[in-house]
Amino acid sequence: MQLGMIGLGRMGANMVRRLLRNGHECVVFDRSPEAVQALVAEGATGTGAVADLVAALRPPRAIWLMVPAAAVDGMLIQLGPHLTAGDIIIDGGNSHYIDDIRRAQTLAAQGLHYLDVGTSGGVWGLERGYCLMIGGEAEIVGHLDPIFKSLAPGAGDLPPTPARRNRGSTAEQGYLHCGPAGAGHFVKMVHNGIEYGLMAAYAEGFNILKRAGIGLREQEVDAETTPLRHPEHYQYDFNLADIAELWRRGSVVASWLLDLTANALAESPTLAEFSGRVSDSGEGRWTIAAAIEEGTPAPVLSAALYQRFASRGEDEFACKLLSAMRYQFGGHRERHP
Amino acid sequence: MQLGMIGLGRMGANMVRRLLRNGHECVVFDRSPEAVQALVAEGATGTGAVADLVAALRPPRAIWLMVPAAAVDGMLIQLGPHLTAGDIIIDGGNSHYIDDIRRAQTLAAQGLHYLDVGTSGGVWGLERGYCLMIGGEAEIVGHLDPIFKSLAPGAGDLPPTPARRNRGSTAEQGYLHCGPAGAGHFVKMVHNGIEYGLMAAYAEGFNILKRAGIGLREQEVDAETTPLRHPEHYQYDFNLADIAELWRRGSVVASWLLDLTANALAESPTLAEFSGRVSDSGEGRWTIAAAIEEGTPAPVLSAALYQRFASRGEDEFACKLLSAMRYQFGGHRERHP
Amino acid sequence: MQLGMIGLGRMGANMVRRLLRNGHECVVFDRSPEAVQALVAEGATGTGAVADLVAALRPPRAIWLMVPAAAVDGMLIQLGPHLTAGDIIIDGGNSHYIDDIRRAQTLAAQGLHYLDVGTSGGVWGLERGYCLMIGGEAEIVGHLDPIFKSLAPGAGDLPPTPARRNRGSTAEQGYLHCGPAGAGHFVKMVHNGIEYGLMAAYAEGFNILKRAGIGLREQEVDAETTPLRHPEHYQYDFNLADIAELWRRGSVVASWLLDLTANALAESPTLAEFSGRVSDSGEGRWTIAAAIEEGTPAPVLSAALYQRFASRGEDEFACKLLSAMRYQFGGHRERHP
Amino acid sequence: MQLGMIGLGRMGANMVRRLLRNGHECVVFDRSPEAVQALVAEGATGTGAVADLVAALRPPRAIWLMVPAAAVDGMLIQLGPHLTAGDIIIDGGNSHYIDDIRRAQTLAAQGLHYLDVGTSGGVWGLERGYCLMIGGEAEIVGHLDPIFKSLAPGAGDLPPTPARRNRGSTAEQGYLHCGPAGAGHFVKMVHNGIEYGLMAAYAEGFNILKRAGIGLREQEVDAETTPLRHPEHYQYDFNLADIAELWRRGSVVASWLLDLTANALAESPTLAEFSGRVSDSGEGRWTIAAAIEEGTPAPVLSAALYQRFASRGEDEFACKLLSAMRYQFGGHRERHP
Repeated sequence: MQLGMIGLGRMGANMVRRLLRNGHECVVFDRSPEAVQALVAEGATGTGAVADLVAALRPPRAIWLMVPAAAVDGMLIQLGPHLTAGDIIIDGGNSHYIDDIRRAQTLAAQGLHYLDVGTSGGVWGLERGYCLMIGGEAEIVGHLDPIFKSLAPGAGDLPPTPARRNRGSTAEQGYLHCGPAGAGHFVKMVHNGIEYGLMAAYAEGFNILKRAGIGLREQEVDAETTPLRHPEHYQYDFNLADIAELWRRGSVVASWLLDLTANALAESPTLAEFSGRVSDSGEGRWTIAAAIEEGTPAPVLSAALYQRFASRGEDEFACKLLSAMRYQFGGHRERHP
Repeated sequence: MQLGMIGLGRMGANMVRRLLRNGHECVVFDRSPEAVQALVAEGATGTGAVADLVAALRPPRAIWLMVPAAAVDGMLIQLGPHLTAGDIIIDGGNSHYIDDIRRAQTLAAQGLHYLDVGTSGGVWGLERGYCLMIGGEAEIVGHLDPIFKSLAPGAGDLPPTPARRNRGSTAEQGYLHCGPAGAGHFVKMVHNGIEYGLMAAYAEGFNILKRAGIGLREQEVDAETTPLRHPEHYQYDFNLADIAELWRRGSVVASWLLDLTANALAESPTLAEFSGRVSDSGEGRWTIAAAIEEGTPAPVLSAALYQRFASRGEDEFACKLLSAMRYQFGGHRERHP
Repeated sequence: MQLGMIGLGRMGANMVRRLLRNGHECVVFDRSPEAVQALVAEGATGTGAVADLVAALRPPRAIWLMVPAAAVDGMLIQLGPHLTAGDIIIDGGNSHYIDDIRRAQTLAAQGLHYLDVGTSGGVWGLERGYCLMIGGEAEIVGHLDPIFKSLAPGAGDLPPTPARRNRGSTAEQGYLHCGPAGAGHFVKMVHNGIEYGLMAAYAEGFNILKRAGIGLREQEVDAETTPLRHPEHYQYDFNLADIAELWRRGSVVASWLLDLTANALAESPTLAEFSGRVSDSGEGRWTIAAAIEEGTPAPVLSAALYQRFASRGEDEFACKLLSAMRYQFGGHRERHP
Repeated sequence: MQLGMIGLGRMGANMVRRLLRNGHECVVFDRSPEAVQALVAEGATGTGAVADLVAALRPPRAIWLMVPAAAVDGMLIQLGPHLTAGDIIIDGGNSHYIDDIRRAQTLAAQGLHYLDVGTSGGVWGLERGYCLMIGGEAEIVGHLDPIFKSLAPGAGDLPPTPARRNRGSTAEQGYLHCGPAGAGHFVKMVHNGIEYGLMAAYAEGFNILKRAGIGLREQEVDAETTPLRHPEHYQYDFNLADIAELWRRGSVVASWLLDLTANALAESPTLAEFSGRVSDSGEGRWTIAAAIEEGTPAPVLSAALYQRFASRGEDEFACKLLSAMRYQFGGHRERHP
């Protein structure tokens, strides 16, 4: 079927490619003419302005936005004058689900439909397919089923879940209508919150392995440094790339993130080209905000988020204050290595 | 080759089965004669006492212990008088790696060899193979390679890690000589620490989804209860089993633990048959203890461990004291639902 | 000077008493006629309706609200028609500072002034005075200085902070204009966030002391229970009330909360009359929400909040899911004591 | 009475001063002759070697060690040949209580007594007195009561705890026999664990206040940076020194650590002279290790400890691995400010 795509970055462009390969008709727009041209060369219909994109689509139109969350409301304002009742806007980016609830209400008043689609897959989606978490009106979700089916990974050769009885859910194809407006981005938000936790679990574990040779270094004896009680217990020099590879097979911690970790460590055992400043793109924060509103404990997911904040130095003043207190009560001066 | 196996519980018995299927000769012992008989029926040589097991093996003997960590030292004392120089003891259970270091030294003084083998695979190992993390002398590890190779999962149909250059490591077959004495259980310990973190990440995430309908319930207005600011944002009724199934395909959080989660939720969407008292069997604790000795931050893995402690009520006095303080400074009385 | 007080609960009534003792004129209202009568007997002017309270005050009126946060907006709607330009509303309860920002703007459009005053002191405020954190227009804060001065603790016999040079700030009297609208409740919010952290630190520490005799109990040996490595190290039976009393003098952890802890443990060493369900009244949650918006790591304050959630069973489903996963991969059944 | 003191650093020297002022006779030794001379000038008996110190004391001798924890065992070996049955060694430093248990047993076999005394007070102890947490044989503790009484703060003008009935405990004077060998350092260990938690609670809270003006800065719009949803809510420029001063009076968070915080911020509102590398001197680690052995949840105290580790860059490899994973799955490159 026909779909308009606005935003041809890393994700949007590959989603268009996957749709084209599955026989869909794609009308595309991006601020960058080069990005548009690249997809025209692969069979998409290119346009040079949002109004042109709308004009090139047959009503009821389906327009997928793949733009930064902070740019979605501006894009809706641009699109507004050109749309007609019955048109469908799909936000496939990383919007906060609360914005989806608001937008769906606002657009409904104009006779427009709005779907929020949390999309996981990253740079791998073109090849593996995109896991789609969809929120909005059931009828509209049903109408776009061919698009979702093509973007999603499909059942693949993954063994079926033995206990499932209600076989036939689209969940088994990698896409799911999760609930009303906002449900898609809510589920995606929690997905990313979990992702932060999983990543942190591996990162902490490999750091413990990395530092397991600490007993080989000399120890200082003074009142400011904790002596290592048993240096003889910390004499290991582990091959982290081999351990990651090992765990991919038969272990309880096997996962796709571990596959990627094994690859990262194979590429660069010391990860020296990374500084360790870790970004967070919103969903982790919103997950914690939602947990707190709900009164749901989320210590692991929170700790994972805070690690990222701290990796960027956001704890600086707190640590200075700790040093200042130590100086106040004990005359302790900071040690520098 | 020939192997003695002591301890025919869930893990030990299936490991013997996997070895028998691969053409190895197994001499087995367990406190339970029934456990021994079951394996004799499948081709193992049964024995009725530790001394008999030793006698039935040709030197240099290889004896695999698959018994609770707390029982290993006792078993070594029983075995001691019957062993001869050059014999090999393999501890495949969940020993603390510090005990391995000690045991390897003690046994070396008697001319005996000791390997520590962290074993992951659970009830699935018979079918999937066991991921083996091995510590000890390289020569002895090499000698037992046929055993390890048969127990391990093998390369399977898992796609190779693209960036790996030093192809040919046994890590790609699912077993690895990690380092000297204790290295196997150290790596297994951290493996389980990571496992706790991964499990907690999923558990917290699904709990946030589970409670996303909290805005549907009525709210009380009093000074002791935080009012929900936006009940309209918490009106979802998610199908957790479908979401777990969905995430298995194409998402960043796909993993074997998620496969199991999908199955658990398919079997029982409310998990009503579980009370939520979660055991911990040692490695999670030791991981944190090692992290602290190393001075390595492990906030996520620690939070995961403490959740388990708290699930068993170990925080009871702390919570009572919080209530008592609130009563002292604010006259707050505990609310009960 | 003259002040209207609406809300004569635990806090409001005692604040009126403290103002009366300092020679101020108080006009009071509460839904409960008994609460009003009690204060009339002590010198306040009682009223039977919000409109009567407004009528009994001379413009420009100053009306202090001491009602649950969820009731403030309703009260402003009730008051609205009776107020005249120049009147001042003070919210002394536990409002979210974001509501203060909105209310100050809304009321300003009507020529009214709004102050937000975070108030700490609990049931002890009548005797010790109330620590006041004030947000709003500087001129209005200045106008009400006599009220704030009377409510605040004053300098007392606390030793002055040696390094302070700008002596003379009202901070040294226990009240402070912290900034524009919302600043008072923002500071109070963080104050309570810190309070949660402090309380949790004591609670965890005393729990560790409480459980330091765990080595005296018998230990089971099975694969599901972590054996205590060194029971001989956990043989203590500490007198917690004496330890709390001890720490009040000369130790680094001396604090008012410790004074209260010492009293609680003196009253009831086992705290058996508490169940350990700990409420949270909003500020702790908002502190974390603000930290996350700011990108500021707050692992300690978050952990303290989550303990409270978990104390009320909000982690139930998460723990059940952990048990379910353990059953799925290892056949582990839950242990019950 | 007579006491020998070995170790005349910050703590030891001031303890001798306090004893001298209370009429006790002190024989002192330190590796630094200047440290010895300084105290001789104030009335102590100086010695130039451990053997001389022992010789200068009348049996049964009482020798207080105030040396780094890592130096205690070496000092016991030095002292050994010179001591006679009945002599008493007091370890007033920061030993791990497990070492106390061992030492008490070892020395008892030689007819010697060993007390472990956790000492809190820092550079303020000379003036405020030292809070003493004592472990060992009751008879020996009683014998040294005059020493403990003089070192301790005494009742002072602190209001008595209202609910205490068993008045007369030395806890009310600031010293306490907590239990058998190791009990003193166990209680001190937990004391310091709590101290870490309290310090972190203040540090995080003040950091949230410090960063409450983040909405005043410009925000970038891209997929890697979380946009601040409501910059209008983060426009504050708080005076942290005044807020710390304010909270000292009448608030729930008043404490000695807050007094010190107020002083630190009065000295230097930006704390620019501190880098924020925070040491930890052992007790915090041991507290967590004990909590884990006991199965006692300690999320707040652990988070506080891990902040310190991370402040020293011990999380570096973990953060690099997070960045590497983000690059692997999403092509995300690290952002640098």
